[in-house]
Amino acid sequence: MKTDPIRTPALLIDNVRFERNVERMNARLEHLGVPLRPHLKTVKNAELARRMMAGHPGGATVSTLAEADYFRAAGINDLLYAVGIAPGKLEAAATRMARGMQLTLILDHPDAARAVADAARRLDTNFRLLLEIDADGHRAGFQPDDAALIESAKILERGGTTPVGVMVHAGGSYACRDRDCLVRTAKAERDSAVAAARALRDAGFEAPVVSVGSTPTTMFAEDLGGVTEVRAGVYSFMDLVMAGLGVCTLDDIAISVLTEVIGHRVRDGQVIVDAGWMALSRDRGTAEQPVDQDYGLVCDEDGRLLSPEVVVAATNQEHGILARRDGEPLDISQFPIGRRLRILPNHACATAGQFEHMWLLGADGECLKTLERCRGW
Amino acid sequence: MKTDPIRTPALLIDNVRFERNVERMNARLEHLGVPLRPHLKTVKNAELARRMMAGHPGGATVSTLAEADYFRAAGINDLLYAVGIAPGKLEAAATRMARGMQLTLILDHPDAARAVADAARRLDTNFRLLLEIDADGHRAGFQPDDAALIESAKILERGGTTPVGVMVHAGGSYACRDRDCLVRTAKAERDSAVAAARALRDAGFEAPVVSVGSTPTTMFAEDLGGVTEVRAGVYSFMDLVMAGLGVCTLDDIAISVLTEVIGHRVRDGQVIVDAGWMALSRDRGTAEQPVDQDYGLVCDEDGRLLSPEVVVAATNQEHGILARRDGEPLDISQFPIGRRLRILPNHACATAGQFEHMWLLGADGECLKTLERCRGW
Repeated sequence: MKTDPIRTPALLIDNVRFERNVERMNARLEHLGVPLRPHLKTVKNAELARRMMAGHPGGATVSTLAEADYFRAAGINDLLYAVGIAPGKLEAAATRMARGMQLTLILDHPDAARAVADAARRLDTNFRLLLEIDADGHRAGFQPDDAALIESAKILERGGTTPVGVMVHAGGSYACRDRDCLVRTAKAERDSAVAAARALRDAGFEAPVVSVGSTPTTMFAEDLGGVTEVRAGVYSFMDLVMAGLGVCTLDDIAISVLTEVIGHRVRDGQVIVDAGWMALSRDRGTAEQPVDQDYGLVCDEDGRLLSPEVVVAATNQEHGILARRDGEPLDISQFPIGRRLRILPNHACATAGQFEHMWLLGADGECLKTLERCRGW
Repeated sequence: MKTDPIRTPALLIDNVRFERNVERMNARLEHLGVPLRPHLKTVKNAELARRMMAGHPGGATVSTLAEADYFRAAGINDLLYAVGIAPGKLEAAATRMARGMQLTLILDHPDAARAVADAARRLDTNFRLLLEIDADGHRAGFQPDDAALIESAKILERGGTTPVGVMVHAGGSYACRDRDCLVRTAKAERDSAVAAARALRDAGFEAPVVSVGSTPTTMFAEDLGGVTEVRAGVYSFMDLVMAGLGVCTLDDIAISVLTEVIGHRVRDGQVIVDAGWMALSRDRGTAEQPVDQDYGLVCDEDGRLLSPEVVVAATNQEHGILARRDGEPLDISQFPIGRRLRILPNHACATAGQFEHMWLLGADGECLKTLERCRGW
């Protein structure tokens, strides 16, 4: 078997699908006329990051300072740390900027702006800031017409730091159930960003950066006029949540977890494999979608779906239980002890996040190489 | 603040509570008259492992070969790998035994026994095996009176390997809702192990090892006659699932995640912190318990519960949303940007599994040291 050298459970990336996903996103952004600042929290690997960044201006997005350090060491220096800055991290950010990292931070509260302005004086650092805008009530952000937005920009400016624009993430796109919702959410994301940038400009700020994005909104946006960059990451691996949203098909999913059959529950017609929640993660992102994929869909060793009926129905730390979703027993004879299978996960970021490295598979399923993954904070 | 040197999110272990939990388990086992083979998948750290093993025979339990390698390197050599052996891992197991590791494997199927016997001949290795027994239909294992149990032992013996006894894990204990259920489940766990060992002995096998355990069943077992060792691990850290089961109180939970307030959702009366599912894990182990703790309970920086009403209501990758469980708005003024908090997690193994190291805190909340954690497979 081709996966023989790999000890299970293991994270596999299909190189052909990865490349196709990258090309599809690039074609989409060419059509929209906006460059990409890929979010690297999905791949957490420098080689894959460079392939996502090819043909774009060279900036990237990260979700932790550990990622910033890792990608900086790999030569990627223009980094947007896209989580509202914790005051306790400002000294670490300043240290990185003093060493030459072009680090941009975000915030969405006048008190955070005050903390940044204080730290800027104390640490003699000209922080670069984007102001986070809320498009859909999903997570964080100023309302575009919120007086606190302008107030925060002024606090930053008085503190000697640079508010360089706005950023929006329409996380609500993940909750869409149809194409209309995705198109509408993409429009709301773009509109809120552009409106907030206009408000900043009306107040005398240059606001050159208007940053939006998520994979679903980028795929369904009809117009990104006024937007200067798009952030997306999960498009590179895709997953069952994206397939459930209609953003991709099952054949686009480049990520899977290799596992091996270790037991049978004959009475229940179920099969035990050696991929539990430690490998798959506990993510149940499809639970609220029209088709709940439990802990993932089951493919053969070559990545071909066994049946849309066969799922990972339950997990323990290092055990997964395969079952038919209709409750009928599996044909156990198809799952001999030692058979290798692949699991398509709900959420690429969560599943990949459980691993320290991943195996890149070529067009014939051969192992091209292992790729490290950045971890921690 | 005492946690100042720690960048958030971070995993904290309260040394006083850890020690108390270890002492409580030791007292319990002394009362029951059975030694401990602690399960190290919770702590995944050699120093804490040694403290759990003190006063016991010196064996430990692991959930991955990576843990076996890590603990072996730290001088812990008698290791039970307590996940049904995947045939694809037998060569790796043989290599470790050839280097002197005293490794015991488990299986629960005649085909797995055949794979072990074949590998034993091919690799000239005398594998040590425990036969896994099912106490409660929860996961894996032979029924104690299953003819396949004796058949498998014979296959192993003919293959020149050694079936050394039986092991049971009553995972169903996690689903109990009252003391009676826990007492009953502990009895079923002990009875099934002893019955299976007797069946093996009646068939001419020595079966010196009768291994049972989970933290809940150990805490509620009334009699472990015939049992030779107990496996338990989560007792060292405890968590909200254990508290919900009545196995511990909230004051016994030694594990928490340090986080910092990074934003407010004023309209919703919610607070955003920098601990999302990447730090807390997606584990929702209390979801089916009488009190659902969402993604965790919120404490102040010193570990004092703010209110039983305040929980982590939702998570993104690096964001947690704090809210009151009754839907009323939080008093946002109590959560200034930059305030540090601690989150008590649902499931210690899952949350700790997200981290590469942990901070050990002393009696006054001071940072004693950082402890590494073993990762991967």
